[in-house]
Amino acid sequence: MLRVGIVGASGYTGVELARILSAHPGVEISVATSRRYADMPLAEVFPSLRKRVDIVCENLAPDALADRADFFFTAVPHKTAMDIVPVLLAEGKKVIDLSADFRIRDVSVYEQWYQAHSSPELVAEAVYGLPELYRRKICGARLVANPGCYPTSVILGLAPLVRERLIDPATLVIDAKSGTSGAGRSASVATLFCEVTDGFRAYKVGGTHRHIPEMEQELSALADCPVTISFTPHLLPVSRGILSTMYAALTTDITAGELQSLYEATYEDEPFVRVCPAGSLPATQYVRGSNCCDIGIQVDERTGRVIVLAAIDNIAKGASGQAVQNMNLMTGLEESTGLLGAPFFP
Amino acid sequence: MLRVGIVGASGYTGVELARILSAHPGVEISVATSRRYADMPLAEVFPSLRKRVDIVCENLAPDALADRADFFFTAVPHKTAMDIVPVLLAEGKKVIDLSADFRIRDVSVYEQWYQAHSSPELVAEAVYGLPELYRRKICGARLVANPGCYPTSVILGLAPLVRERLIDPATLVIDAKSGTSGAGRSASVATLFCEVTDGFRAYKVGGTHRHIPEMEQELSALADCPVTISFTPHLLPVSRGILSTMYAALTTDITAGELQSLYEATYEDEPFVRVCPAGSLPATQYVRGSNCCDIGIQVDERTGRVIVLAAIDNIAKGASGQAVQNMNLMTGLEESTGLLGAPFFP
Amino acid sequence: MLRVGIVGASGYTGVELARILSAHPGVEISVATSRRYADMPLAEVFPSLRKRVDIVCENLAPDALADRADFFFTAVPHKTAMDIVPVLLAEGKKVIDLSADFRIRDVSVYEQWYQAHSSPELVAEAVYGLPELYRRKICGARLVANPGCYPTSVILGLAPLVRERLIDPATLVIDAKSGTSGAGRSASVATLFCEVTDGFRAYKVGGTHRHIPEMEQELSALADCPVTISFTPHLLPVSRGILSTMYAALTTDITAGELQSLYEATYEDEPFVRVCPAGSLPATQYVRGSNCCDIGIQVDERTGRVIVLAAIDNIAKGASGQAVQNMNLMTGLEESTGLLGAPFFP
Amino acid sequence: MLRVGIVGASGYTGVELARILSAHPGVEISVATSRRYADMPLAEVFPSLRKRVDIVCENLAPDALADRADFFFTAVPHKTAMDIVPVLLAEGKKVIDLSADFRIRDVSVYEQWYQAHSSPELVAEAVYGLPELYRRKICGARLVANPGCYPTSVILGLAPLVRERLIDPATLVIDAKSGTSGAGRSASVATLFCEVTDGFRAYKVGGTHRHIPEMEQELSALADCPVTISFTPHLLPVSRGILSTMYAALTTDITAGELQSLYEATYEDEPFVRVCPAGSLPATQYVRGSNCCDIGIQVDERTGRVIVLAAIDNIAKGASGQAVQNMNLMTGLEESTGLLGAPFFP
Repeated sequence: MLRVGIVGASGYTGVELARILSAHPGVEISVATSRRYADMPLAEVFPSLRKRVDIVCENLAPDALADRADFFFTAVPHKTAMDIVPVLLAEGKKVIDLSADFRIRDVSVYEQWYQAHSSPELVAEAVYGLPELYRRKICGARLVANPGCYPTSVILGLAPLVRERLIDPATLVIDAKSGTSGAGRSASVATLFCEVTDGFRAYKVGGTHRHIPEMEQELSALADCPVTISFTPHLLPVSRGILSTMYAALTTDITAGELQSLYEATYEDEPFVRVCPAGSLPATQYVRGSNCCDIGIQVDERTGRVIVLAAIDNIAKGASGQAVQNMNLMTGLEESTGLLGAPFFP
Repeated sequence: MLRVGIVGASGYTGVELARILSAHPGVEISVATSRRYADMPLAEVFPSLRKRVDIVCENLAPDALADRADFFFTAVPHKTAMDIVPVLLAEGKKVIDLSADFRIRDVSVYEQWYQAHSSPELVAEAVYGLPELYRRKICGARLVANPGCYPTSVILGLAPLVRERLIDPATLVIDAKSGTSGAGRSASVATLFCEVTDGFRAYKVGGTHRHIPEMEQELSALADCPVTISFTPHLLPVSRGILSTMYAALTTDITAGELQSLYEATYEDEPFVRVCPAGSLPATQYVRGSNCCDIGIQVDERTGRVIVLAAIDNIAKGASGQAVQNMNLMTGLEESTGLLGAPFFP
Repeated sequence: MLRVGIVGASGYTGVELARILSAHPGVEISVATSRRYADMPLAEVFPSLRKRVDIVCENLAPDALADRADFFFTAVPHKTAMDIVPVLLAEGKKVIDLSADFRIRDVSVYEQWYQAHSSPELVAEAVYGLPELYRRKICGARLVANPGCYPTSVILGLAPLVRERLIDPATLVIDAKSGTSGAGRSASVATLFCEVTDGFRAYKVGGTHRHIPEMEQELSALADCPVTISFTPHLLPVSRGILSTMYAALTTDITAGELQSLYEATYEDEPFVRVCPAGSLPATQYVRGSNCCDIGIQVDERTGRVIVLAAIDNIAKGASGQAVQNMNLMTGLEESTGLLGAPFFP
Repeated sequence: MLRVGIVGASGYTGVELARILSAHPGVEISVATSRRYADMPLAEVFPSLRKRVDIVCENLAPDALADRADFFFTAVPHKTAMDIVPVLLAEGKKVIDLSADFRIRDVSVYEQWYQAHSSPELVAEAVYGLPELYRRKICGARLVANPGCYPTSVILGLAPLVRERLIDPATLVIDAKSGTSGAGRSASVATLFCEVTDGFRAYKVGGTHRHIPEMEQELSALADCPVTISFTPHLLPVSRGILSTMYAALTTDITAGELQSLYEATYEDEPFVRVCPAGSLPATQYVRGSNCCDIGIQVDERTGRVIVLAAIDNIAKGASGQAVQNMNLMTGLEESTGLLGAPFFP
């Protein structure tokens, strides 16, 4: 039984990690930290966990943490993560970091979008935790940088097109919509129920969202040339769910049927990527509460553009579910252990 | 591996059965019926089930059904159920009926609230499928009448008070609120998104809801005297969830602390009933997607009334989850198999 | 053109006052205060008001406020209100206070539920601003205590029954449900979108909500005897709307038809109280954005109880709309001026 | 007092027309038709209208309709409209048609996207009812084709850019999101509450939505050259509201500040178009229940694209509000009469 620790257990990715791990046959949660809720049972912070999770939150320094578990998830804000992760690694632990701190391989790019990096050497070592692209590397990693929620949907959605050079990357327009859990669990007027419900808005328009360099890094690697994207995030009045709608000009005469076949072949053996049958489209309500990424492809013959739609649950496949998938790989467990539950609908 | 059949798979209780059973280690879904969606894969009706459930809906007569599975869930409307269940039983199958047809032990009461009953002899045999009250009988049953959603919350919430005669049953007022999935999946203007969202209403006010005789039957049995209740259901703008708020005059000088202890003692060993700690209250968002029933108790010293609040997910503990709990009991499996997933929050 | 001031303009009752007053033909908003948003246009705090309201928020002491308007709405928390109101009155202004500070006529009761009162002499003068009960007094008042949201729905719903002594007040159970705007606009985890949406819960159970003494005061006055109620508030996942479901034992043999006629006669000439036709029921979505209170009555013959349902928009008839109705009365305008817009549905 | 008729009063545009017209000082609703609800008071179909609208629905043939009002709104499906409108015009009435039947000036284009047209001669006469573009023509029109909801947001959002040739029309990508009221009020599984809430999806992807020819017609006219767009509609879990996010490559070196000034100058005197200040963005919750169209502009310097966001209430400015604005113009009333109410937030 693997002893796992959750650093930063009181946010939405924390409670989702606890939910998934509580039903995972190969692990036990041996430590959970929270500054705000120190000494409080996690099931008191999140009553959904009653009778399922009995860990008590602690406020522990990184060095006091290390011997409390064999494997760690750091679910804390960027910048905080880069101070904790090196300590845990130094103690011989494996770590999955859910923040942005180890996702961007080019430290100067990281520092341009975030702030100075205190552990650039670990950046070089970290593996980008998208199993569908980096499965083998993840298996051997000590440190996995768990992908951002938007990037997960975008990279899985575009990978076949970009890798096969079927689109002109300069024409990429990505219009993404996320549930409000992506905004975190801090008290703020902007995410109060009454400000969000029955409404819809964009935010960080004009190429300013911090997930952009992460997406461009991975798309550029797939394209084998620099890719710059237009990316606009929006806030949905739902708790969970991302739908990314992606547009690009096709560079060849490929048919919709051939594209469909390409996607189906690419993801056929993936347990968590589901290509919608021709003519049907993904929806966030069909992936809710699961580690699935659903992808649909359509061609607009009038304009020569392909439109790809990818749906995930932002705190499952977009965060905690994918983290557990990575943990399974890093620890030699069957990749899908604890993650095969079907989405909750309705 | 138990082969189970879902009769009426295309409603919300059908998809929830399929979701739960798809992750259940001891069963496989061997047949699923739907008149409307005959010959369509269930995962096409409910894309949430893609790559998780591969059964194809069929439109089968009861006698053609029987040899397709060892165990059946009938998730069809009342009246339809009473025509199918006898055929399956006659073929030696065990059945859990999710309709109201076998819940009311007094056939004349059933006929007063519903319509004529064609299999009164089976009513006598059927066991009311609330495991917390009838566990032993369920283990030996051939036919289990799965409780209604409202009754599940109400009976579990009131059982300790009524059994111990701590309240005056004549003062019972039950104000219940249900998510819209309880209204089913048929096309109707009244349950369109725009008619329900951002709104709230009561329905069937004044003692007319058909779950009333079911609740009165069980409360009367617990009280060992006839109980008549005031019951008002309301429609919540959520998919899943019931919260029942129950009021009654206390007949003794019992303290809030003693009541709390009574509830905790009653449900201590129950895997699915969670008594909220003193001072905290249940909420539907803390049971969503799970088989849990959360109960909170408060005393209003100003009026001498006790207020009990019980929350369930109406299509899980209120229908399909409880049905699987019953199946586990009827087939000798560990009662909680496949049902211990924590609620998903947020 | 009456110059009106809004003290505390940046909460949800503030923006609703601004919305209603911006379309009111007899007034102009001459001053609006907000500590948090001082020097910011109110239409920047609430972009809904762009091109409709051009006032800039100011942070003003009460004495600097007085000459900036002829008439004031104080939409600040209780305790803060009692410090501002006396200053405005002393300067000869009329005031409608939306807080609880002047609603409870018995100062000792106020102090038991809230805290010490610094202006008990004004409590005696203040008129309880429920026009359907106190229209004449409101017309002559200098200070009106605008009713609480729950009390508005409860008192209007019960008044005919209580006044005519048709029910036993000791049996009154009031189960009320409110939209989240009632919780105000302060940043807090408990009212974040993800904590509220797709969920439902009770709060302040057991006779502890501060609207209780206000309801008991008015019901006692109507009954001409002391009335003690059981009252349980709940939080709805909607922005606006209260539905109160009220139960009481009938003391006479009155029929449902006679009750219906009583209600229709009572409220026939009221522009804002709408009695639902026999057999139909109110819903919050039918009063949204309006000053209406919809009432439905049902009799449960099985238990001898009457059930009254009353729906309002909590920040309109439950706060700002009712305040404007009171302002119209206090200033000699036609009572319904600026308030006759039909509810927004869907 | 203008006598107006609503043909097709029982849909969501019908109830919104009735709501707006009931508070309009210059009109009275003299007739309302509905096949489904014939002989039922409209306020029984929509209880929100109680005590505000007292018209009774009738099922009338077009020729029986004509003398019942001076001015008509036809709020019926396309194809049905083209059979009614000619009769009303022949009787000397003015008509605003809310269907698509008279929006497409090129009948062959109409017939390609819809079906055969029975009154092509009226198509030539009809004026496209977007007052911000065609105000003068509308004033003199007998027949106005009220724009579609998506086109209203898109055309108002793009007009300044397209008219000034600041963008390359071939790069236009329009990602639009609409509230569910846009899907109408017919019973259907796809728009049930449980299918829509807490979810998000695209539909009619790949250039197949029937609003495309309408948008292309108007954008082509503004650009003075043929414009072909990529357009993807999505379904939001809200009742009301459209947000269109529009992307195009800039063709000149114009700065964000210059674009902002262009938009502000263009719409300065428009009562219903509100350009968001630089740095702020529109949101559907800020236009809800109003005739406003809010527009925000951002430049993505990394990609050379401009992003325009436009928000409307789809059944107000996107349908019934705009129709009343057109009616005001056609009848010589002040354009904004009855339409200046601020949006209701929250």
